[in-house]
Amino acid sequence: MDVNHINMQGGNCEPDRPAHPRIFPTCEAGKSDHQPGERSVDFPVSVVLPAGGTGERTGLQTPKQFCSFLGRPLISYTIQAFERVSWIQSIVVVVAKENVDLMTDIIQRFQHRKVRVVPGGSTRHRSICNGVLALGEGEEAAADRPKVVIIHDAVRPFVEEDFLYKIARAAKEQGAAGAIRPLVSTVIATTSEGYLDHSLERAKYRASEMPQGFTYDVIYEAYQRCSESDFEFGTECLHLALQYCGTNAKLIQGPPTLWKVTYKRDLAAAESIIKETLSQSACAVTGGSTQAVTLADALQKAVGALDMELDVIPDLMGENARYLLKEWNFIQVSVNRSCLSELEALLTDLEAANRALLHPLVVIWVHLSASDELSISERMAEPATIMDLAAAAKLRNILLYGIQLHQSKDTERWERSVLKVAEITSALIRERSPALVGQLLQA
Amino acid sequence: MDVNHINMQGGNCEPDRPAHPRIFPTCEAGKSDHQPGERSVDFPVSVVLPAGGTGERTGLQTPKQFCSFLGRPLISYTIQAFERVSWIQSIVVVVAKENVDLMTDIIQRFQHRKVRVVPGGSTRHRSICNGVLALGEGEEAAADRPKVVIIHDAVRPFVEEDFLYKIARAAKEQGAAGAIRPLVSTVIATTSEGYLDHSLERAKYRASEMPQGFTYDVIYEAYQRCSESDFEFGTECLHLALQYCGTNAKLIQGPPTLWKVTYKRDLAAAESIIKETLSQSACAVTGGSTQAVTLADALQKAVGALDMELDVIPDLMGENARYLLKEWNFIQVSVNRSCLSELEALLTDLEAANRALLHPLVVIWVHLSASDELSISERMAEPATIMDLAAAAKLRNILLYGIQLHQSKDTERWERSVLKVAEITSALIRERSPALVGQLLQA
Repeated sequence: MDVNHINMQGGNCEPDRPAHPRIFPTCEAGKSDHQPGERSVDFPVSVVLPAGGTGERTGLQTPKQFCSFLGRPLISYTIQAFERVSWIQSIVVVVAKENVDLMTDIIQRFQHRKVRVVPGGSTRHRSICNGVLALGEGEEAAADRPKVVIIHDAVRPFVEEDFLYKIARAAKEQGAAGAIRPLVSTVIATTSEGYLDHSLERAKYRASEMPQGFTYDVIYEAYQRCSESDFEFGTECLHLALQYCGTNAKLIQGPPTLWKVTYKRDLAAAESIIKETLSQSACAVTGGSTQAVTLADALQKAVGALDMELDVIPDLMGENARYLLKEWNFIQVSVNRSCLSELEALLTDLEAANRALLHPLVVIWVHLSASDELSISERMAEPATIMDLAAAAKLRNILLYGIQLHQSKDTERWERSVLKVAEITSALIRERSPALVGQLLQA
Repeated sequence: MDVNHINMQGGNCEPDRPAHPRIFPTCEAGKSDHQPGERSVDFPVSVVLPAGGTGERTGLQTPKQFCSFLGRPLISYTIQAFERVSWIQSIVVVVAKENVDLMTDIIQRFQHRKVRVVPGGSTRHRSICNGVLALGEGEEAAADRPKVVIIHDAVRPFVEEDFLYKIARAAKEQGAAGAIRPLVSTVIATTSEGYLDHSLERAKYRASEMPQGFTYDVIYEAYQRCSESDFEFGTECLHLALQYCGTNAKLIQGPPTLWKVTYKRDLAAAESIIKETLSQSACAVTGGSTQAVTLADALQKAVGALDMELDVIPDLMGENARYLLKEWNFIQVSVNRSCLSELEALLTDLEAANRALLHPLVVIWVHLSASDELSISERMAEPATIMDLAAAAKLRNILLYGIQLHQSKDTERWERSVLKVAEITSALIRERSPALVGQLLQA
C-alpha cells in the first residue's frame, strides 16, 4: 500500500496557514519586492470591523464572530490580528445594538487596546458607514482622522500584516484597494425558471474578498453620496467608490488565509488552524540535573521529527524569562518527586506572566523515575497530586498533564520510551483536551 | 461574561454535515415533496469520478484525493458515498496513468465493489470523456450502457443519496442537471491592469458545483462534437451540453455538504466532519452484572448530555450482534479484573466482523474497582496488560483506551467520577488519538 499519509498537523508547505504564531513575515516567501525598511507606514491607518452578522449560514444560534475557539470568541482573534500591527492606530468594531454589552465584555476580558465599539445599522453598508463616521468624530476630528481606512470582516481572523501593508499603501496611492482571490467554482447565470443560461469564463473574473482599503475621503464621500437602495441592498464597498467617487480600486491577490468563516465546517477549520499555530513550539525546563538534561535533549530530537520545535533551558531565570513572554508550551522535566515544587513554581510564574489570557496554555510534567520499582506510596500519591494541581491550573486556563517514564539501561527500551513521551507530548499539545488534564500517562 | 461556548463537536443544527454516519435521509428535513416510494430509480445510473487533480492549491505533494484521513484516502470516502446507494450500478474512477496502481491498491485494500479504474487524459475534460467512453464499452455495450451518468469530484466526499436522486431524476427528464450554490463572495471583473472594472450583481449568479447528471446520449454526444479547444481549456460539462446538444441543464440548489476539498484548511474541516460522524454513538457492553449495568446507565445519561448516544447491552449475542455491523464505538464496562477476558472477547468479535476496515474503531475499557485500596499487584499489572492489548489492537486499526474509577458510597463523589468517565470517553472517541492508546486514565 503506497498511500502517503499526510500529517494533518505538520508539514512545512501550508499556504493557508500563518507561518508561525504571532510572527509575521516581513516579505512573502520567495518574493521580496519591498525591503524591510520600506515596510513602515508613515500615515495614520484605522480599521472598521463590521461584526453585525447573524450567522445564519453556519446554522448556529450564535453569530459566527461570537463563536468560541479554545474559550475565546472569533472576533477577539481578528482584533488581535490588527492590534499587533504597530502602524494601525485604532479599530472600530461595529456590532448590532443588542451585542454592544457582549462586545464590551470581550474587549475587557481579553484586554484589547485600540478598540472602540459602535452600534451598527440594519444592513452591512449602514454598519460600515457608522464605523467610518465614528472615525471622523471627536473634538479635534480633522487632526485625528485616519488617512486610510481598512475595512475587514470580523470572521476573517487570519489576516497578516504583510497583506494589510499592501492594501494600506495601494489605498493611499489609488484611493481604494481590495483583496481578490481566484474563483473556486465556475460562475453561471440562471434563467428565471432555474435552467442554465450561460457560464462565465472563469479566467476573467475574481472573487472580491476582504480586507479593502480606502482613503478616508473616498469612503466618506461614497457613503455621503450613495442612495438608500445602495444602503439597503448593496454589499460591495469597492462598487460604491467606483460609482460615486469614480475611483477604480487597485485589486491585489491575497493569500488563501483571507478566507471567511462562513459554514459550520469553517469553524472546524478555524479551530484546527488556531490549534496548529499554538502547537509549534515548546520549552523544556530541566532544573539543570544531568539526567533531566539528557532526557530533554533526547526529547528535543524526537519531537523535532514530529515537526515541533523544542528549546531546552535549565530554568526561567535571567534571560530565559523571555520564554514567559512568547507563545510557548512548557514541559517540566523532573527526575525525582521533589521536583513537583519546580512544577508548582513554573505554574506560578506562568500565572504571574498572565500567559494564559488569550489561549489555554499546555504544561506537561515529564517524570523520570529512577527504576521500575516504585513504592506504593509514590504510585498512589503522584496521580492525586498532579490531578489536584491540574484542577487548580485549569481554572487559570492552564492545561496540565503528566507523563511518567522509567529509567532503563536497555538502550532500545529507553529510546522507545523517549519516543513514546514525544508522541504523547505532541498529541497533548496539539489536541489540548480539557477532559484529560491531570492524567499521569505512561510512556 | 456572556459569550456562548459552542460545542464544536456537538449540536443538532449542522447544515453542512451528514445527519448520521452512513444513514441518509430519504427526504429533506421539513420537506417531503417525494414519498419514500417515489425515491426508487428505475433506470440504470453510473458514476464518473475524475480524480486526476494534482492538488496544487493545498500546497501538498500528495494530490488531495489521495490525502489520508484516519488512515484512508479521501477518494475512498467519496467512492463509499456512491457505493452505498443501491440504485447506482457502477463507478468509473479516472486517475492519472501514474496513479492507476495506487488506485487499484486502494480499491482492494478497502474492499470497494462496483468500481473500475480508467487512466485519465491530460485535462479534466479528456479524463471525464475517457470515463464516459469506458461506460459504453464491452461486448453488449448498448444493453449495459447507463441511462444516466453522474459526474462528481473525487474531492467532494460528503454527497448524500437524497441529492444524487434529485440530480439523476432531473438529468433523465431534462437531459442534463447540475448542482448550484449561492455565491459566497461578490464576483468582479478586472481590467487587464489589475483594477476593478465592474462587480456582478450577486443575486443573478450561482456557483456551479458537483454532482452533475446527464443522459448518456447527451454527454456522449457533447464529447463527440466538442472542439480541441474545449478539451484543452474548458472545465464545465454543463456548458458542453448546452453548446453542442442544445440542452439547458436543470439547476438544483445543493446542500453545503457538496463543498469541494480545495485548500489545506479544507483537509482539517474534512477530518473534523469525518471524526464527528464517527463519534455520535457508542455501545456499552456490561456483561450483565448489576454494578456494571448501574454504571453503564449512569454513563448513558452523562454522555447524552455531551451529545453522544449510548446503548447499553449485556453482550453481543443474538440480536445484539447487529451492533457489530454498524458504526458504533464500544465501551466494555468491567467490575473486576477477570473481565479483561470479556474485553479480549470483544476485541476478537470486532476483528472477526472486520469492523475497523474503513475507520479506526474506538474501544474503551471502563474498569470499576470495588474500593480505593488496590493491591500493588493489581495497580502494576493492569496498565501493562491494557498497554499490551492496545498495542496488538492498534495493528488491527482498533484504538483501545482504559479508564479506571473507584466505587464510592459518597453520592456526590460517585456522580463526579461518572461525569469524569463520560467526559474522558467523549474526548477519547472524538479525538481518536493513536498516541494515547493503552493508557489507563483515572476518573
